[in-house]
Amino acid sequence: MKPIKVGLLGLGTVGTGVVRIVEGHQDDLSSQVGSPIRIEKVLVKDLQKARSVSIPEEMLTEEACDIIHNPDIDVVVEVMGGIEPTKQYIMEALEQGKHVVTANKDLMALHGREIMAKAKEKRCDVFYEASVAGGIPIIRTLMEGFSSDRIKKIIGIVNGTTNFILTKMSQEGAGYEEVLKEAQALGYAESDPTSDVEGLDAARKMAILATLGFHSDVALEDVDVRGISQIKKEDIAFAKRLGYEMKLLGIAERQDDQISVVVQPTMVSTSHPLAAVNGVFNAVYVYGEAVGETMFYGPGAGEMPTATSVVADLVAVIKNMKLGVNGQRALTPYKEKKLKTDDQIVYKNFILLHVEDKAGVLAQITQVFAEYEVSLDSVVQQPNPHNPDAEIIIITHQASQASMKKVYKHFDNLDVIKSIKSAYRVEG
Amino acid sequence: MKPIKVGLLGLGTVGTGVVRIVEGHQDDLSSQVGSPIRIEKVLVKDLQKARSVSIPEEMLTEEACDIIHNPDIDVVVEVMGGIEPTKQYIMEALEQGKHVVTANKDLMALHGREIMAKAKEKRCDVFYEASVAGGIPIIRTLMEGFSSDRIKKIIGIVNGTTNFILTKMSQEGAGYEEVLKEAQALGYAESDPTSDVEGLDAARKMAILATLGFHSDVALEDVDVRGISQIKKEDIAFAKRLGYEMKLLGIAERQDDQISVVVQPTMVSTSHPLAAVNGVFNAVYVYGEAVGETMFYGPGAGEMPTATSVVADLVAVIKNMKLGVNGQRALTPYKEKKLKTDDQIVYKNFILLHVEDKAGVLAQITQVFAEYEVSLDSVVQQPNPHNPDAEIIIITHQASQASMKKVYKHFDNLDVIKSIKSAYRVEG
Repeated sequence: MKPIKVGLLGLGTVGTGVVRIVEGHQDDLSSQVGSPIRIEKVLVKDLQKARSVSIPEEMLTEEACDIIHNPDIDVVVEVMGGIEPTKQYIMEALEQGKHVVTANKDLMALHGREIMAKAKEKRCDVFYEASVAGGIPIIRTLMEGFSSDRIKKIIGIVNGTTNFILTKMSQEGAGYEEVLKEAQALGYAESDPTSDVEGLDAARKMAILATLGFHSDVALEDVDVRGISQIKKEDIAFAKRLGYEMKLLGIAERQDDQISVVVQPTMVSTSHPLAAVNGVFNAVYVYGEAVGETMFYGPGAGEMPTATSVVADLVAVIKNMKLGVNGQRALTPYKEKKLKTDDQIVYKNFILLHVEDKAGVLAQITQVFAEYEVSLDSVVQQPNPHNPDAEIIIITHQASQASMKKVYKHFDNLDVIKSIKSAYRVEG
Repeated sequence: MKPIKVGLLGLGTVGTGVVRIVEGHQDDLSSQVGSPIRIEKVLVKDLQKARSVSIPEEMLTEEACDIIHNPDIDVVVEVMGGIEPTKQYIMEALEQGKHVVTANKDLMALHGREIMAKAKEKRCDVFYEASVAGGIPIIRTLMEGFSSDRIKKIIGIVNGTTNFILTKMSQEGAGYEEVLKEAQALGYAESDPTSDVEGLDAARKMAILATLGFHSDVALEDVDVRGISQIKKEDIAFAKRLGYEMKLLGIAERQDDQISVVVQPTMVSTSHPLAAVNGVFNAVYVYGEAVGETMFYGPGAGEMPTATSVVADLVAVIKNMKLGVNGQRALTPYKEKKLKTDDQIVYKNFILLHVEDKAGVLAQITQVFAEYEVSLDSVVQQPNPHNPDAEIIIITHQASQASMKKVYKHFDNLDVIKSIKSAYRVEG
C-alpha cells in the first residue's frame, strides 16, 4: 500500500514526540488508516544539532521549500511555532494543496480565519487540536461531541505554567517570584515568562475555544486579560481560608447572543471540579444548555501529550484523504459576534480593603455598594495585626462589571479607605 | 433545502429530549449540516398517552414499519431500549439503507459486532455515543481524539445509580438498603435495581469502551463483574478513615497484548480524580501510553444530556450523508483478543479480617501472605469494641488475583481467622 508522506516543520519538543509516535505506533496507525504513514522530510534550524530521536540525515533539511514545494508530501505538520515565517509556510503549503496539522495557538488565534479560508478554497484540511490544552481533545469535543448543544459557558485552566505557579503558591504558601524561579529552573516557565504569566497564552486559547463554542469569530483583542504576576501570597491565603483556590481561568460566556471572554485570576470554590486541577495539568469545563456540566482534564503540554493530539489530527486528515472529503468538515462561524458590555458582564467579587479602624467605616462602605445596587454575600471586618488599619473582606453576590467599576471609583474618593488591596472574580 | 427526515423509535425520557433538541436547536443544527432536520415519525406504544412535548398526532405511530419501511426516512434514531424487537428493527432499518443512531448499550454490548457488520455491508452509519456515559462524548474521544495513542487503562464510573448510592452512603454514613430506597423514590434506581446494583449495566458499557480502546472484540462475558449490594456501611467508614472513597469502577487494562476488564467496588484514593466524582455524575479516566492521564466528566444519564449525544450523532450521520461517506468511519477491532489470566491480573487489596484476639495471630496471618509472595503495604490490628474478636486491616502491595485466591483459600483453613469480613480492590 502506498504510504502517506508527511513533512514536519520543526523538530523541537513536540516534533520529536510526533516522530516517536508515528514510528512507535506505526502498526496501530496503519491498521486504522489503511496505509503506512511515513515522515518524509523534517525542517530543522541546524542539521548538525544533536537530537534525542535518531533520524536519517537525508530526512533533515534546512530549507522549508523541500517540504512545502515537495510534490511527494501529502500533509504538512507544523510544530515550529511562531507567527512568521510559519504563517507563510502554511499558506504556501495550502496553496500547493497540502493538508496542514498545526499545534500553533498563536497563529490560529491571530490568523485562523485567513488560514481556514485558504484551506476551504483549496479543499484542504487544517486541524489544530494540539493548539489548546495539549493532550485533551477539547476542539473535537466542541466541534463534534457537542455539535447538537448550545454552549453557554467554557471555563478553562489552559495554561500549565501559571497553574503550576498558583498550585505551588497555594500548597506551600510561597511567594510569586520564588515559585516563578522554580518553574523556570524546572523548564515549566520560559526565561521571559510574560506570555504565560500575563495571561496572553491563555487568551489565545480562549479565543479559539470561544470561536468554536459560540460559532462567532472571537478575536484575541476581544479577550479581556489579566495575568497572575500581581497575586500576593496573602491573597491565596485569604482564598483558602474562605474555601477557594486561586486559579487563572479563561471564562467564555454567552447569554442569548451576547458573549464575553476574559482571562483573569479567579477564586474558585473548592467544591467546583476546577479547584482540584493542580500543577501543569489543564482542564476545560463546558456548560451546555442541554448537556449541563462537563469537564475534560489532562496534560496541557509536553512532548508526548501534545504529539498525541497532533498525530490524532494526522490520522483524521488521512482518513479524509481516503474518503476524498478533505476541507469539508471545518466549522465556519455563522453567528454575528456581539460582545457584552460592562453592564452585561456579571460575576461575584472578592474585595480586600484596608480601612481606618474607627466606628462607622463599615456603614460607609456598605452604603457605597447599596448606592450602585451591588448586594453583598458577606462582609468581615478584622483588626490587622501588622498595622493600625483594619481589614475588610467583602464577597459580593453577582454584580455587573459596570457597577463594580463605579464602586471602585467611589472608593478612591472615600477617605476612610486607605487602599483596595486586592480584588478578584469569584466562581462556583 | 430538502430536509433530512428522521424516524424516532421510542418517546420515553431520551426520545423526548431528542425532540426538544431537534426542535429547540433547529437553527443551529441546520446551520451546521446545511439542511433542516425534521422528525417525521415517532414510534410509541400507546397513541393516547399524555406527553410532555407536543407532537402532532399524525407524527405518532404504533407500527414500527411506518418508520423502518418508510422510504422518506433517512435516519432511524433508536431510543426505545431493550434487545428485542429493537435489534430486529435496527437490522431491518439497515437492510433498507437507513442510518442508525442508538443509545442502546445492552444491544451494542451484546450484538454490536453483528450490527456493525450489517452497517458496513449496507454502507450505513451506526453511531452509539449515548450508549456509554450519557452526555460525555467518550466514544468519539477514544475513536478519534486518541486514535494516535495506545490506551493502557480505562477506568469508568459509568453507572449513575450506583454512584449515587455509594456517594450517599459515604456522605451520610447510611446503609445500602436505606439509600437504595431513596434512590428508587427519586427515580435514580428502578424498582428492580439488579442490572445497576449488580454491575451488569456498567459491565456492558465497559465492554463497549474496552472494544474501542483496545481494538479487540471484548464481549460482555469477558467482563468479571461484582456489584455493590454486599457493601456494608462499615466498609465505607473504613475506606474513608484510610483515605479512600468506595466507588463501583469499571477497569479495563492492557499489558502488551493481554487485556482484562472488570467491574467491582473499589477503594479509590482521595487523591485520584475519580474519588471526587459524586452523585449521578459519570467520569471516564483514560490512561494512554503517550498522552498519560486524562479524565472526562459529565452527566451519565438524564433526558437532555443523553439526547445531546444522540443528536450529536445525528449531526455526524447527516454530515457524512452530505459528503457521501456513510458507513466508512466505523472502527473494526483488528487485534486478536487475549484475556489476562488470574496470575496476570494484578492490583492492591484491602482486607478486613475478624480474628481471635490472642498472641501470634498476626504472625500466622502475615506468614500466609509471605507464602504466596504477596507483600504488604500496611497491617493494623485493633480490638473490636463490639465483640471479643480483634480486627485486622491489611492493605497489600500489587498482588496477582491468583495469589490472592490462594491466600483466601488458606485463610478458610486457618482456625485463628473467624471470618474474612470484607475484601476490595484498591486504586490510586
